Amino acid sequence: MFDDQVLPYLRQFSTEHIISKTMRVVGVGESAIEDILKPMMVKYQNPTLAPYAKDAECLLRVTAKVHDPAEADALIDPVIQEVTPLLGDGVYGVDIPSLEYHLVQLLQEKGKKVSFAESCTGGLCAKRITDIPGSSAVIEMSVVAYDNLVKEQLLGVKHSTLEKYGAVSPQCAIEMARGCFMISGADVAVGITGIAGPGGGTPEKPVGLVYVAVTDGHRTWCRRLLYPRSRDYVRTVTATNAFNMVRKFLNHPQDLPQDQEAQL
Amino acid sequence: MFDDQVLPYLRQFSTEHIISKTMRVVGVGESAIEDILKPMMVKYQNPTLAPYAKDAECLLRVTAKVHDPAEADALIDPVIQEVTPLLGDGVYGVDIPSLEYHLVQLLQEKGKKVSFAESCTGGLCAKRITDIPGSSAVIEMSVVAYDNLVKEQLLGVKHSTLEKYGAVSPQCAIEMARGCFMISGADVAVGITGIAGPGGGTPEKPVGLVYVAVTDGHRTWCRRLLYPRSRDYVRTVTATNAFNMVRKFLNHPQDLPQDQEAQL
Repeated sequence: MFDDQVLPYLRQFSTEHIISKTMRVVGVGESAIEDILKPMMVKYQNPTLAPYAKDAECLLRVTAKVHDPAEADALIDPVIQEVTPLLGDGVYGVDIPSLEYHLVQLLQEKGKKVSFAESCTGGLCAKRITDIPGSSAVIEMSVVAYDNLVKEQLLGVKHSTLEKYGAVSPQCAIEMARGCFMISGADVAVGITGIAGPGGGTPEKPVGLVYVAVTDGHRTWCRRLLYPRSRDYVRTVTATNAFNMVRKFLNHPQDLPQDQEAQL
Repeated sequence: MFDDQVLPYLRQFSTEHIISKTMRVVGVGESAIEDILKPMMVKYQNPTLAPYAKDAECLLRVTAKVHDPAEADALIDPVIQEVTPLLGDGVYGVDIPSLEYHLVQLLQEKGKKVSFAESCTGGLCAKRITDIPGSSAVIEMSVVAYDNLVKEQLLGVKHSTLEKYGAVSPQCAIEMARGCFMISGADVAVGITGIAGPGGGTPEKPVGLVYVAVTDGHRTWCRRLLYPRSRDYVRTVTATNAFNMVRKFLNHPQDLPQDQEAQL
């Protein structure tokens, strides 16, 4: 009703239109984004540039005031063009609903399938991917392996790895990813192990510590994450980071991503 | 602020308190609940009885107006006592957050573990269970088996079953549940297969058709669900129904539940 009746009525009294596009950024810290964008936020008055933080992602809204809506693109698009390269490969889309939506599209484009072996995220990665209609073409399978025995028997994580390094370790994440790759037949497999809390933390391995490994059978990339926050937050942010790692993996078929933090 | 400041201030002007308890009901249709409760909704003025529908569940709010908050239980609890048996075993809790919360508690009490083999729910069952802190003690594993090959190779669904009946069939749901039971070592295993949509429906197997099977290695129970609605709704309602089937399975260790719709 607002869109159909109220807005046209109100618009009689103003010849100005406010039109936005939203850039979606992942894997770039909030403070880094602020440092990079501050000069541009000052520089631009129309369109304006406004960042919004959102669980391990950032939305950048570019908003133009125009008299004719047809003029909006000409104002907004050059700003998007200018900002995008400043954020490395952080910008994954403009006016799209979510990172998982982008990832499903990217997998479809490249004709690849992904699999997840999830411990602390407990199915959240699979759930978020399969929220997207048509995702059945790109997700091969997912295993939720809470139990160490499942990690061993189904995913082939070595008993000695669990004994020596524990289930929350880069070694275990990597063996989970490789095991998942082997049993699923997917092109890219992800292993996730960590402590979502509220219980289970120790001084050495606190709540919020997570290892995520991605492999395509040749290259394996493992990252250590530490977000000492609520269970929901740890799980959400871990899934988002895992999706971003798969995205980078698909976009850089030759090299391992530059920002690797732990690779065995 | 409202609770701490505004409410006490407003309460000066009224000596009346409004206090509610919320019964949570699953597996009883809305119209059935209305038929059962209508006479009681008319009969009771204080407390009042008000049903709220919520994705395959129903909340029943029992609300008392009292001058002394200490009087509330004496008014509310007898109504809960009277209503509960009218709804069969539909009432699973009072003032608890969710069905998955109840199921995790029930599994803990009984010292049992559950596993899921999910196709159309794509990890939603595992995700909802592992949303609950402490759930790692009761969920053994979960497999998201979108692909037929995964259903065959990992879960041991027979190729002939898939050829003869298709992936969306009670036979496949049952073999998924039994395969999941075998590989997980859990006490109860669930197999879920269906068409969440929006694509993939046919006249014989429309969007919203789902089969859920539960097994404990001895008994196997399979139900056919049909909720021709949105993808989100189909997935949510399927997970809720699956949780309710596990709950009934645990609560009736000797007999199969009475309302079975398909059992092979």
